[in-house]
Amino acid sequence: MQNSLINQLNQAFCLLPGVGKKTASRFIYHLLEKNPLGGLELAKALEKTISNIKQCSICRCLTEQTICQICNNQNRNKHLLCVVGSSTDVEIIEQTAAYDGLYFVLNGYLSPIDGVDASTLKLEQFDSLLKQEVIKEVILATNATMEGQVTAHYLNNITKNYPATKISKISHGVPLGGELEYADINTISHAIADRKDI
Amino acid sequence: MQNSLINQLNQAFCLLPGVGKKTASRFIYHLLEKNPLGGLELAKALEKTISNIKQCSICRCLTEQTICQICNNQNRNKHLLCVVGSSTDVEIIEQTAAYDGLYFVLNGYLSPIDGVDASTLKLEQFDSLLKQEVIKEVILATNATMEGQVTAHYLNNITKNYPATKISKISHGVPLGGELEYADINTISHAIADRKDI
Repeated sequence: MQNSLINQLNQAFCLLPGVGKKTASRFIYHLLEKNPLGGLELAKALEKTISNIKQCSICRCLTEQTICQICNNQNRNKHLLCVVGSSTDVEIIEQTAAYDGLYFVLNGYLSPIDGVDASTLKLEQFDSLLKQEVIKEVILATNATMEGQVTAHYLNNITKNYPATKISKISHGVPLGGELEYADINTISHAIADRKDI
Repeated sequence: MQNSLINQLNQAFCLLPGVGKKTASRFIYHLLEKNPLGGLELAKALEKTISNIKQCSICRCLTEQTICQICNNQNRNKHLLCVVGSSTDVEIIEQTAAYDGLYFVLNGYLSPIDGVDASTLKLEQFDSLLKQEVIKEVILATNATMEGQVTAHYLNNITKNYPATKISKISHGVPLGGELEYADINTISHAIADRKDI
């Protein structure tokens, strides 16, 4: 690599998840040789988005407004609250169109080893939401990882202080369309233990 | 996707080769949630690089200067000229440290079907370089594709006008460390036809 500018840009691209030096170099030469205008557009969109996106003051998902479109939507079911790890999860669940309630975004999971505790995640905001006594059911959609489960347990304990509020969690098991052969043994043993009568 | 800014940024990321909506979304949420400063850095580096990088006035590779570091380097062999398709190829050959001559970057290949002819690629600049009678050998390192071979043939014809200039091309065959089993049949048949005495 001859050019310090290209070098610096390469390092900056390597900040993206799953992008190494080779991919970064491919991105850079593609933009420089084939689409410099597109590259400038990307730079502008990136700067604009990062400078303008903030957390919704209610559900904490990423939004351009003070209150996000979901919290602001009068047609959503105000009695359902789905708790997810990140704004990406909100986007994924929204794509299914299977859910019409509200969200609470954790923006991380409890992980004492990394120094992430309830105050880091500002989980008192979750408590405040329940205090309003509008929510009738909390659906835990945290990741099926150790941290996700620990966080779910913690949120379960908070929710228990509000006996009028039901608590549930999304089901885990073999993915639809998935073959047993390719599922990992933890998923299979969970799927067997969690079997349903038909 | 709720936010028009995130939507626009997603489209901009999709301009990168091999990046689709899902990968773009992963990039965006990673930057927004985990590394907004890195994202701003990337935007800045991208804008700065695209605005400042231009083609070297001699070899036409991408550079920050009017004349690139390779053309400017007095220690390089001025009698050797390696012809490549793009600046990426220069970078790759430089990484091998197996070549100390100069380059000529085509910035594309002849492709009549796409309307790319000798004047699009400004191949008269290649002719002008040979006219100076400094170059003793032209090494064709064009891609082993139809377009690359057609372009090589064209450059070969130009070079023949300068009988003092030797012309060669890089060897093609089974990659080092490659197993026959995994090489494609065209490569194998070429490797057999192009066999060398040992």
